[in-house]
Amino acid sequence: MRHTIPPRSGAAFTLERGQRLTVIDPEGEQVADLLAFSRSDIDEVISSGRSLDYASRIFLTTGDALYSNRSNVMLRIVEDTVGRHDFLLTPCSADTFRILYDDAEPHRGCFGNLAHALAPYGIGPDRIPVAFNVFMNVAVDGDTGALAVRPPLSRAGDRIVFEAETDLIIGLTACSAPQSNNFAFKPIEYEISS
Amino acid sequence: MRHTIPPRSGAAFTLERGQRLTVIDPEGEQVADLLAFSRSDIDEVISSGRSLDYASRIFLTTGDALYSNRSNVMLRIVEDTVGRHDFLLTPCSADTFRILYDDAEPHRGCFGNLAHALAPYGIGPDRIPVAFNVFMNVAVDGDTGALAVRPPLSRAGDRIVFEAETDLIIGLTACSAPQSNNFAFKPIEYEISS
Repeated sequence: MRHTIPPRSGAAFTLERGQRLTVIDPEGEQVADLLAFSRSDIDEVISSGRSLDYASRIFLTTGDALYSNRSNVMLRIVEDTVGRHDFLLTPCSADTFRILYDDAEPHRGCFGNLAHALAPYGIGPDRIPVAFNVFMNVAVDGDTGALAVRPPLSRAGDRIVFEAETDLIIGLTACSAPQSNNFAFKPIEYEISS
Repeated sequence: MRHTIPPRSGAAFTLERGQRLTVIDPEGEQVADLLAFSRSDIDEVISSGRSLDYASRIFLTTGDALYSNRSNVMLRIVEDTVGRHDFLLTPCSADTFRILYDDAEPHRGCFGNLAHALAPYGIGPDRIPVAFNVFMNVAVDGDTGALAVRPPLSRAGDRIVFEAETDLIIGLTACSAPQSNNFAFKPIEYEISS
């Protein structure tokens, strides 16, 4: 069964150990911020710092793991038709739009959408870390350290598949930041399979 | 007054708004992991994802801010004689040494040292995020995303100075990871001034 996350919105759901989560970009150039928390203890959450350290790489793809703050593998990437995702930046928020876009009446962004979707699981906004930003294309200049948010490399139908290595609560969005999605807001689709 | 953090250990202390914290590498090539929490609410903590997004750069230096997870400026870098620090990786831990160094009886690392030092302030280990790793030299290959931990660029007497923009609890270490410190463990010194 395929689920749709409408443009600039988010969802939360559970994923059991061994299940696979497929995240699909149905129209192309659309980012999806992904969070994962342990169902047995919501204080265990994906950690960019652990995952990048253990991979010794900032661009994760097939075979790589998303580790928790307690150094356990939460999700493993088992298929990836794009190969470029971001794990450096926090979900866009009203503050992001105020600070980076000078927006006077900012959208709540992926941060607000995730906080809203995760609230029924008892997860508060302060518990939202750096997300695994599926399809987000952030270029890094190795000399200067400059970051550049570029259009996603994903085209219509591209996908990434994660396998859960423990029981999880997942937060997932159709990203709300103009620059991250080449200035067009599209839906994200996902499927859960055994 | 100058304080010394012995090799492979850590400390925690408070810093008032407007005070300056100087972190000194007395012998050279020694990393210091730094954390900052709001004294008025320990759920507010430095955020690599927010700070790097707002700077649009992974290498922060003089003039740059360390933002919190709530997008408030916690610390600002006001002087920096080195110019290369890391804000991608979590503090080294027993898990780091087990996974990356295959160490059978691992040291508790900066993570364990920070957790121990911050416990009296009511801050638990799950609240430890990506640290601002003072003097840590992590090279990023912009094409492949590969990370390489290189010897720090700091020489004896080099320093970085932060100004607090709110009342803070600081965690600070003399880093315990062999590769981060060119395989020699040295002390870190710090001073607090008005």
